[in-house]
This record gives sequence, structure tokens and C-alpha cells, in this order.
Amino acid sequence: MPRTGRRAGDAGTRETILAAARAEFAASGYSAATIRAIARRALVDPALVYHYFADKSSLFVATLDMPADPRSIRNATQASGSPGAMLVEGFLAQWESGPGQPGRSFVTLAQAVSSSPEVARSVREFLGDRIWEGRNTADVELGWRWNAVSAQLVGLAWNRYIFRLEPLASASLQEIATRVGPVIESLLIGDLAAPATEGDNSEPS
Amino acid sequence: MPRTGRRAGDAGTRETILAAARAEFAASGYSAATIRAIARRALVDPALVYHYFADKSSLFVATLDMPADPRSIRNATQASGSPGAMLVEGFLAQWESGPGQPGRSFVTLAQAVSSSPEVARSVREFLGDRIWEGRNTADVELGWRWNAVSAQLVGLAWNRYIFRLEPLASASLQEIATRVGPVIESLLIGDLAAPATEGDNSEPS
Repeated sequence: MPRTGRRAGDAGTRETILAAARAEFAASGYSAATIRAIARRALVDPALVYHYFADKSSLFVATLDMPADPRSIRNATQASGSPGAMLVEGFLAQWESGPGQPGRSFVTLAQAVSSSPEVARSVREFLGDRIWEGRNTADVELGWRWNAVSAQLVGLAWNRYIFRLEPLASASLQEIATRVGPVIESLLIGDLAAPATEGDNSEPS
Repeated sequence: MPRTGRRAGDAGTRETILAAARAEFAASGYSAATIRAIARRALVDPALVYHYFADKSSLFVATLDMPADPRSIRNATQASGSPGAMLVEGFLAQWESGPGQPGRSFVTLAQAVSSSPEVARSVREFLGDRIWEGRNTADVELGWRWNAVSAQLVGLAWNRYIFRLEPLASASLQEIATRVGPVIESLLIGDLAAPATEGDNSEPS
């Protein structure tokens, strides 16, 4: 983190604004939340919010950093045990720990990224830096596998928190991890194979 | 379709309102679109919109029916050829045929279902009636497989239209279908297996 000339109390003020923003986004949703309402919750002047954050979308992306550091997801995939189950449980647990009902923060994220291309781009870059750092982006097949994994996780959260599809909506995190973990593993390392053309039954390496 | 006592011109008026609503939702997004603006586009009085549709969420769900009948997706899975590839291409093609840039209707749907629990419930019931009708809901394993398939499709659309992740965002529908088709097939019929408890190696049926 680069050092700036700001005074010592700044870190606390920034955290206060972030906490207020998280609460306001959870309560009102991304579209209806305003910088003014966030400033009111934080008991600061709106101008001070703009001192730390360029605009609402920047502030929203900053709120994603604290309770839900994506690096913890990536680390989960490197732990021992069933990596798929740990990834699923770690991914979902992050959305169920914030303010409001479980999954509220995912619903707010979905609102934000679908309402604002700027937020969508920021979140993509944020996740790209954190989760995919160090991956070999030149490996096309691996890129498609990671796409399938991220699609599966996003779709899982969508079905659980937004569509509330059963049996998913009522299942425990542990049951979901046990059920969907093998799916993730097959997407990552299973025999999905490069697309075979007709008459080409090449063996998986 | 049940016959009512309405006059002959009604079907045309309803279609005009639906077309105006589709255009307005695509242009303004779900949250910002108003019944008044839709009525203005349709050149009718707002009261006439309420004659046909109870509220904005009902109207939105009705707009989903026309360009994107989910039954065509289900039918695709019953056709010959690679069912996974056909399902993927059919699913994505529906979001790329409407007004606005390709995928705009999915972005609007994402806004709507994440902003309104009523819309989310309506869409869930709508899709449930159309796609899952006749499926054996008592088959728990099959339920989890269909959950994985729907999560994969929703996540695919999310990554392509909202996050614009590469290589997905720039790929042709046909390339995506070729790449993701085998994923869908493995989710539906592959050896993901029911979660084995320790010492329990039951065979898949």
C-alpha cells in the first residue's frame, strides 16, 4: 500500500466510510444507495467520502475487499482435502457472513454489476488480479476450464440467493460443498477433453 | 389460451405494449423503466397497461415469453447431435437476438431479478413450468445435476455479457457451444457420482 501524506486518523475514517457503505448497499441495494446516505450513516460530510473514493462504483468495489478477500478462495484450492468442496464452501461462505440475510451481499453485487458496466469492469479486474494472478493465460484449454469453474460458482450463488432454487436454497453449505465439489473437480481436471471432431477419438493425456 | 369477452383488437394492443416494454427495458434497464414511459412508447394511456398487466414485474415477466421461449431450449436437448452444444448455443442465442447490443436482454434480466424478489420468483416459476415440466422432482441426484447445468448456463451468460471475461466474451456462439457442450454433457450424464461416504463405493445406476 503506497504511503501518502494523509494524517494518522485517515485510516479510521476510511474504514468508517467503508462500513457505512457496506451497510447502506446491503439495506438499499446498489442502485438506490447514495453517497449522501452513506455519508449520513458514517456521520461525515459527503465531500469527505469523495476525498477517499472517486465515485459510487469505486466505493462499492472497495467494500468488496474487506469481508470477502478472494485470495482466501484461491488459497482454499491449494489446501489438502477435497479441493472442489473447499472451494465451493469457501466461495459461498463469503456471501453468508455479511450484514443482512445470508447471500444479501451477492444480491447487491449482482445489482451493481448488472446496473453499471464500470462496476462490472472493476470487479472483473479486481478478481482477475487476486484470483487469477500467476495463472498461465496463454493456456487456452486451461482458460476455458477456469471459465467453466467460475461460471459454475457464479451460477450456484445466483440459483441459491436470487432464484432460490430447491434443493439448493435450503441445503447447508456442507451439503452443497459435498454435492458440487466433485463437479468443480471434474471441470478443473476431469475428462472434458478438447472438442473432438467426428471420427477423432483422441485419448486424453 | 382461454377466450375472454374482450374485443378483437385486444391481442394487438397487448402485443404493442409488450413490444414497447421490451424496448423500454432494454433502453433504460429494469429499475429505471416506468409504466408511464412504456405507455408513451406504445402510444396508449398508462391505465391501459394496467388493464393487461398487474404491475411492472408482471409486465417484465411477460416480455420474456416472446423472443425467448424456454421450451425451445428444452427441445434442443431432445434433438439429435451433441445435446450439450445445442443447449449452450440455443441458450445464448436467445440473449443475442433482442433489441440493443447482444446480451442486453440478459443484463436487463439480471437487473430485474436482483432488484426484485417478486421478479425472481416469477422467473423461477416461469422457467420451472416450461423447462422442468415433467421432470421427476423426487430424484434428488437428478435435481442436483440439473442445478449444476442451470448454474453453468447462467454463469456462462454472466461471464460473457456482464463480466465480459475473455476468451468467452469475444468467442463465437459456435466456439462456445463446442467448448462448453462437453461440460454440460458431463454435468448431465458424466461420472460425477453421488457423494461417496467413506467406505461406500456404490455404483451409479
